[in-house]
Amino acid sequence: VTSRLSLNQATTTQWDMPSVVDGCVRAGIDKIGLWRGPVAEYGLERSAKLIRDAGLTVTSLCRGGFFAAPDAIADNRRAIEEAAELGTGILVLVSGGMAPGSRDIDGARQHVIDSIAELAPYAASHGVQLSIEPLHPMFASDRCVVSTLDQALEMALLFPADQVGVCVDTYHIWWDPNVYAAISRAGSRISIFQVCDWITPLPEGVLLGRGMMGDGCIELRRLREAVDATGYSGPIEVEIFNQSIWDSPGDEVVNRVQRTYLDHVL
Amino acid sequence: VTSRLSLNQATTTQWDMPSVVDGCVRAGIDKIGLWRGPVAEYGLERSAKLIRDAGLTVTSLCRGGFFAAPDAIADNRRAIEEAAELGTGILVLVSGGMAPGSRDIDGARQHVIDSIAELAPYAASHGVQLSIEPLHPMFASDRCVVSTLDQALEMALLFPADQVGVCVDTYHIWWDPNVYAAISRAGSRISIFQVCDWITPLPEGVLLGRGMMGDGCIELRRLREAVDATGYSGPIEVEIFNQSIWDSPGDEVVNRVQRTYLDHVL
Repeated sequence: VTSRLSLNQATTTQWDMPSVVDGCVRAGIDKIGLWRGPVAEYGLERSAKLIRDAGLTVTSLCRGGFFAAPDAIADNRRAIEEAAELGTGILVLVSGGMAPGSRDIDGARQHVIDSIAELAPYAASHGVQLSIEPLHPMFASDRCVVSTLDQALEMALLFPADQVGVCVDTYHIWWDPNVYAAISRAGSRISIFQVCDWITPLPEGVLLGRGMMGDGCIELRRLREAVDATGYSGPIEVEIFNQSIWDSPGDEVVNRVQRTYLDHVL
Repeated sequence: VTSRLSLNQATTTQWDMPSVVDGCVRAGIDKIGLWRGPVAEYGLERSAKLIRDAGLTVTSLCRGGFFAAPDAIADNRRAIEEAAELGTGILVLVSGGMAPGSRDIDGARQHVIDSIAELAPYAASHGVQLSIEPLHPMFASDRCVVSTLDQALEMALLFPADQVGVCVDTYHIWWDPNVYAAISRAGSRISIFQVCDWITPLPEGVLLGRGMMGDGCIELRRLREAVDATGYSGPIEVEIFNQSIWDSPGDEVVNRVQRTYLDHVL
């Protein structure tokens, strides 16, 4: 019943690459979402072989994007190559914020589109779809000027479907009065579905404020049903940034993930 | 040139009621935005008389709302009466979040509409318009389930214009990809325009993360021009919650407010 569950490795940063792979196998989870940092730390080819040998499927690689950086295009080309090497067809894009001192959010948004235009054919030629992730508006200035699913979709629709899709993460979009209409419209452009919960109040350091499913106020099951209603039947990645989860034993976290996934998502 | 500038007293919490009135007079500011807490502390009638005698106009009263509270209707009736007593035609509504433990954001939103329906005629009979303020989506769970200007406007349009309008605060809506269309649509429903800046990174405790105009990334002048283009020619309230501003001498803060208003808003 947890056959669609994928563990995003950002949920268990207490584990290095071999540990998270072992942990997935022990728990009977056969899907994993990866981040470039830990992959680079363990080695790209070595990570790819380890995961392949363990029989795991890589459901996405996080993350490309951050297009305001001067070397963004070259770096994103490498991210595309890494996704291909790791055997995933999806590179999640956190598109980046505004340049320091800038007030030109429209310009930053246009720059995201221009950058994706430059990268999308390269991605498709590697069998990789770029997946634009809208981030919660509280990150608009420094992490991602793409703030709603509608906005991400409008950008994605400028490109062929095999080149660009959207990432639906409950944490970032649950508050949107238009979220169900936007999911429905996103339809077959949904590349990947990620879940975690919104807990109140936000812990200090808003980046690490994500909660285990059921610990917060998001209607996770309703959102999952809306995503499924579009025809999406792909993986459901659990991705939780939370210091107290990272301070717990990994196996315990994975067990909680599996249990709360059943109770609140499925 | 600063004739539209109104000092919201939340910007200078280092001052009690007589001090902020004196401070406005000293600086040549003839408009003030009030909060119920400091008004109650100094006394309602006493505050009204003090402000009237000083020749100040009250541009808005913050705040009604918080409709999830059990005594919300009675409390909002009192807020309406206070606004009338203070001589302002605008009561700003921070509509409140979801009840603790609830996941029903749609229900909370409907409850906002139902509550406003109950209050709006009472407000209008006191010469007070309820002004729905969309709050930044990072406050959706605990402070305000109204998250975008479009959403606030759709709610306001359910009622006659003399009963319900919307509050446009740059801090809460600057990130919205639809913000300029929403302002244009809001048109004559705009009750009040509030300004401050978004600074990055957010300080600890996201409530106090607001910046002096020019210190952040919001296109304040462009937003002001968009609001004015709807025909709005009312006050521009400066409302900044920021501990370091509250720790500075009040006169210095007011001088900075006037200078940065000219440099970045007007």
